[in-house]
Amino acid sequence: MKLGEGVEAAIHCAAMLAGVDGNSTMSGAAMAEAFGLSPSYLLKHLNQLTTARILESVPGPAGGYRLARAAEQITLLDIVLAVEGREPAFRCGEIRQRGPVKIDASAYVKPCGINAAMLKAERAYRAALAEVKLSDIVADYAAEGDPRSFAASCAFVERHQRPQKSGPPKQI
Amino acid sequence: MKLGEGVEAAIHCAAMLAGVDGNSTMSGAAMAEAFGLSPSYLLKHLNQLTTARILESVPGPAGGYRLARAAEQITLLDIVLAVEGREPAFRCGEIRQRGPVKIDASAYVKPCGINAAMLKAERAYRAALAEVKLSDIVADYAAEGDPRSFAASCAFVERHQRPQKSGPPKQI
Repeated sequence: MKLGEGVEAAIHCAAMLAGVDGNSTMSGAAMAEAFGLSPSYLLKHLNQLTTARILESVPGPAGGYRLARAAEQITLLDIVLAVEGREPAFRCGEIRQRGPVKIDASAYVKPCGINAAMLKAERAYRAALAEVKLSDIVADYAAEGDPRSFAASCAFVERHQRPQKSGPPKQI
Repeated sequence: MKLGEGVEAAIHCAAMLAGVDGNSTMSGAAMAEAFGLSPSYLLKHLNQLTTARILESVPGPAGGYRLARAAEQITLLDIVLAVEGREPAFRCGEIRQRGPVKIDASAYVKPCGINAAMLKAERAYRAALAEVKLSDIVADYAAEGDPRSFAASCAFVERHQRPQKSGPPKQI
């Protein structure tokens, strides 16, 4: 089972954006710099988060990205599904119906037990991801992370955030 | 998040092998036929299961595959890890250390909270897979599956299993 590398970048960026003041934004280039990533690579994942309405993109010279809703209302599951898609990891190809064992189609109305068991495990995975809010990640970093690292991240956000002249304040 | 297609084939083959008599085997070609798969494609996954000691491979003209241990002692997790590898789905690239936010290495001794949260969810997934035994899959199929489909599968196994003249009986 594999998750794309974009998941790590997406969660880190969302956590960083949880730290901007009010309705300020940060540019994709600044976040790419923060994590040593190529801006074009990161753009793809920022777009996925924007499409999923986790981020909002503000146009213009002082534009950039900010959270579209409060960090308390964003879970790790939201971010993982935004980047990886909503399809189950286990894709049932109905191979039970492919060979000579196949009988009348009416025998396959009920889902295959193997598929059902695999999807049940995925529900447990998703439930665990849904329990973790972005605000938890940030709070844990503040409380448990190395204080020098936390201070350096805050200073980076402070330097790169872009205050907005107008527009609705971020709802936190 | 994606699981390879081989997982479905591997679980179906293991479930089919749970139905052979005593220490009989089935050939990879027969199982490929049962599920409409290419024998060379399936061989890769049968080899993975053999390497993981879920199956054993018996050489010779009457050879083939059989379970290496009782179906009660094989879980879906065993099979998924055999096919997909044991690495976590979430690969932490330590991007927190890549950019200018990086400080002294001593600040990163503790795992990143994002990595920890993602791995915790994977533990929930793996625990759910570990709860399902291969024998449960077979028992559910017998009890809940379409009886015509179950009978057709049993007849296929009956026709294709290869009794062994010697060797230890399967420990079930």
